[in-house]
Amino acid sequence: MDQQLHFITFATPDLDAARKFYKVGLGWDPLMDVPGEILFFQVAPGLMLGLFDAEKFDQDLNNATATSGVSGVTLSHNVGSAAEVPTTIDALVAAGATVVKPAQAGAFGGIFHGHVKDPNGIVWEVAHNPGWKINDDGTVVFG
Amino acid sequence: MDQQLHFITFATPDLDAARKFYKVGLGWDPLMDVPGEILFFQVAPGLMLGLFDAEKFDQDLNNATATSGVSGVTLSHNVGSAAEVPTTIDALVAAGATVVKPAQAGAFGGIFHGHVKDPNGIVWEVAHNPGWKINDDGTVVFG
Repeated sequence: MDQQLHFITFATPDLDAARKFYKVGLGWDPLMDVPGEILFFQVAPGLMLGLFDAEKFDQDLNNATATSGVSGVTLSHNVGSAAEVPTTIDALVAAGATVVKPAQAGAFGGIFHGHVKDPNGIVWEVAHNPGWKINDDGTVVFG
Repeated sequence: MDQQLHFITFATPDLDAARKFYKVGLGWDPLMDVPGEILFFQVAPGLMLGLFDAEKFDQDLNNATATSGVSGVTLSHNVGSAAEVPTTIDALVAAGATVVKPAQAGAFGGIFHGHVKDPNGIVWEVAHNPGWKINDDGTVVFG
């Protein structure tokens, strides 16, 4: 299997809250929005974020018991300066997120970051990472 | 916050098993590999997959209780034909994955797919989706 991810999909108990947060609150533009089923946003070249109704998510996986929620995973969004970390977190909170960890220096890598939860419990890290960059061809470099 | 994801990071109880699965089993090339801490693979333009020691993952989030494991999320890898779905699943199993759902027609979207779990419980869907494509500029299109 090639070293390539095409979709990341989350069990989403409240799809209306997800729509309000990402589409209205953050101004993101969905590629597809099927009320009661799924909401897709492109979030990198060739990569979709899917927010999938939690019951349908479980059915699709043939899960014997309902998913207890999202755990053990974080999504990260990098910003261009340390100063943008708290302002981005403020914008996420204004859109309906809750703070998990306020903006602060990270434990390693020289990063400055903080974390929030979206209305369905998906954790987003907002980070400034001075040693990280994306080249024009999409290649990621760690400094 | 821009509609852009830069990292997806999973709590990984057994980082050695993750290394063996992705690096040895699948032949993926890590951008960074810090034994006992974290393993990074680039999986799309500008996007990193991080496999982060589970204890350190919890510390980083200031979690009061240990993460019970990964849940409520799937990663998807698309292949070019329905026939490649079972062969890709077989290759994942040979590398150390376990089958969650064997290759079969999906409930909607005209897809043919199946699911496996990696050694740390991360679910991968392998799918052939005839209505999906990535344009040369990285834009995703649904049919």
